[in-house]
Amino acid sequence: MFQPPRGTRDYLPEDQMKKNWVIDQVREVYEAYGFEPLGTPAFENLDMLQIKSGDDIIDQIYNFTDKSDRELALRFELTASTVRVVASHRDLVLPFRRYAIGPVWRYERPSELRFREFWQADVDIFGVEDSIADAEVLSAVVDAMTKIGFEGYIININDRRILSSIIQLAGIPEEKSLDAFRAVDKLAKIGRDGVIEELRGISPHEEASIKLLDMLGLKGNPDEVLSMAKIMLQDYPKGVKGCDALTKLYEYAKGFGYAEYITVDLSLARGLDYYTGPVYEVIAKGFEKYGSIAGGGRYDEIVELFGGESTCATGVSFGVDRLVPILEEKGAFDEMHLGAEVYVAPVNQKVLVEALKITQMLRDAGISTVVDMMGRRLGKQFEYADKKNIPKVVVVGARELAEESVTIRDMKTGEQEKVLISELAEKLG
Amino acid sequence: MFQPPRGTRDYLPEDQMKKNWVIDQVREVYEAYGFEPLGTPAFENLDMLQIKSGDDIIDQIYNFTDKSDRELALRFELTASTVRVVASHRDLVLPFRRYAIGPVWRYERPSELRFREFWQADVDIFGVEDSIADAEVLSAVVDAMTKIGFEGYIININDRRILSSIIQLAGIPEEKSLDAFRAVDKLAKIGRDGVIEELRGISPHEEASIKLLDMLGLKGNPDEVLSMAKIMLQDYPKGVKGCDALTKLYEYAKGFGYAEYITVDLSLARGLDYYTGPVYEVIAKGFEKYGSIAGGGRYDEIVELFGGESTCATGVSFGVDRLVPILEEKGAFDEMHLGAEVYVAPVNQKVLVEALKITQMLRDAGISTVVDMMGRRLGKQFEYADKKNIPKVVVVGARELAEESVTIRDMKTGEQEKVLISELAEKLG
Repeated sequence: MFQPPRGTRDYLPEDQMKKNWVIDQVREVYEAYGFEPLGTPAFENLDMLQIKSGDDIIDQIYNFTDKSDRELALRFELTASTVRVVASHRDLVLPFRRYAIGPVWRYERPSELRFREFWQADVDIFGVEDSIADAEVLSAVVDAMTKIGFEGYIININDRRILSSIIQLAGIPEEKSLDAFRAVDKLAKIGRDGVIEELRGISPHEEASIKLLDMLGLKGNPDEVLSMAKIMLQDYPKGVKGCDALTKLYEYAKGFGYAEYITVDLSLARGLDYYTGPVYEVIAKGFEKYGSIAGGGRYDEIVELFGGESTCATGVSFGVDRLVPILEEKGAFDEMHLGAEVYVAPVNQKVLVEALKITQMLRDAGISTVVDMMGRRLGKQFEYADKKNIPKVVVVGARELAEESVTIRDMKTGEQEKVLISELAEKLG
Repeated sequence: MFQPPRGTRDYLPEDQMKKNWVIDQVREVYEAYGFEPLGTPAFENLDMLQIKSGDDIIDQIYNFTDKSDRELALRFELTASTVRVVASHRDLVLPFRRYAIGPVWRYERPSELRFREFWQADVDIFGVEDSIADAEVLSAVVDAMTKIGFEGYIININDRRILSSIIQLAGIPEEKSLDAFRAVDKLAKIGRDGVIEELRGISPHEEASIKLLDMLGLKGNPDEVLSMAKIMLQDYPKGVKGCDALTKLYEYAKGFGYAEYITVDLSLARGLDYYTGPVYEVIAKGFEKYGSIAGGGRYDEIVELFGGESTCATGVSFGVDRLVPILEEKGAFDEMHLGAEVYVAPVNQKVLVEALKITQMLRDAGISTVVDMMGRRLGKQFEYADKKNIPKVVVVGARELAEESVTIRDMKTGEQEKVLISELAEKLG
């Protein structure tokens, strides 16, 4: 028997309906924000995918050659393709605000929650220097999460310029700052001592490392942390710029309505090397054990790296698939009816064509309706409707038809009611 | 500058919005029919993809090995993966009715209308022997086409059992019937003489070929053609079964409401080798030059071939991407507004946070809204809204705010109107 390839999975209807529901809600929010959809191919030229991410990604990428020996690879994220589009379409009207929801592929060790094919939902804004764009993409993702049922958040923000200024202030050589970022990024995972250990290879002065960690330990209310940081970094113009960007972001968040969730966390680095300004992550209250459910940051230098004109950019991304089990745990789907609402049951084959007409009438009215195709007896039809969790059955019989009527059966209560066909759609809608 | 890989394309927002609109409409119809979504991975094990299609497909397939040397390939259609699921999940409740809308990949010579990545929309029903299932999938696709704006159809139907009986009746050896199918399938392309030429290699008797083509020439009203065919094939029980299946299909189509479009065309073969019963294709009236825009057939033997229990199956498929230019030609999108409906324009940075609040209010009301992020002067903001085809601008100024008002500007007429903020969403909704 054939299985899906290792690390991938099928979404049987119940799971796919939940996933579609999440995607639909998120899309609705993104579109309310005026983000526009962009479609790019599932695979890209390998050299393009490597620009932003270097050779590291090669271990995680599905690369292959086409029949003309072109080096291709399945996309492992949605950003690179978008940057390619922005870089090569110089006529795009800026700001360019796009969303994309689609599958990406990474050859990673699969687990119960991690698959080699998974869906990401991204919003990005190109062409805006001010941190209002960062505030807006964060707002979109917070609203999307709220729409699917989350109720409170911890939003951690930081700025890469603050982080690099602190690293300089701590006496770590600038050319080592990327390594220091990566070490600091592991703070939650390996702890303070672990980071000091890692930093030993970067800065020989343990004192500097401790100073660094003390400064990075600053975390809390944006006004307080940022005013402290600004004093601390007064000799580092870039760091001050970072503080100002976050101050503004926080101010905008008040307008957007999510400021109460924001914490400035000077240790937040968000992995990727290419961030240049604000970085951010969203944690769902009550679901802290899942870590950040969305994250992103500003990457003002990438479009140019891809051969385009220098263009500011910021964006946020989250994994769609992993939200489904979290929402299940939350009971978000418990009250939801996904799938057909009505089953039309002809009592015998003689009334089948009439049953089809009634079925079509309900479908035209937007009511999801299924009709018997097996010529089964009524009892068997009820069993099928029950197995498929279809809440209402419309029984079509010759006698009722003569009176232009049918019988509605409520599958939960077993109650039956005779209804005129002309009133059926309204009754069931 | 990087381009999408050869044979693939990007969908910039305007095109992607049109494509999404088509997909949304089709999905809405499929869901009204109670079809359930099934999600399967973009790539499959190569040997699985080859079962149904043989080595032929190798030329068209993107195959590759993963980092553990598994032989994989991008799916080139959605059916094989679905059959895999049905074959391996013996606990599925039958009938199993699924839809799938997603990308497939074929390494073909690209053209303006043909890409190597393209989207298919499928409905299939598993577990129903009666041709009511064929009638239902056809109905779903006809309704989907009507929903996106087509108005009349030519639906050609035939049955593989009729075709193979005719081939036998014409004196062509049974073991050659697949070759004969393929030759006959080219009738529209290479003409009568071309087919006779091709058949020369299969049957040495030109007389038989001519007889075959005469019988296959039967085409027209289902009642007439099928009663003739039934007499002609009276000694061929399979052929008679095929006629009965189509007679029923036509009867059901009356219930579903699309019988008027049906033509029985005894030459219709629909390419694929694995069809076992009814085959069908849909042509849009007025758009005949595009050929069939949807097609499918019954494939009762494939689930068993995939290692499952013998399960009847029938389904229909169409290409989503190619419908978009046809609909454009039809003017279907001319009156449609895709994208943001409202642009919120703060007159200066002092009112920006208030403008954000108003923006959020509109978004919460489901109105797609964009707000200025560039601190631009009002004139520049109007220009941007105009370029992006956003029909309404809400101007936010300090004086109006003091009166809890804003100004709505209609970008088409240039008319302006002062409105209370509390009434804005209703006014614009």
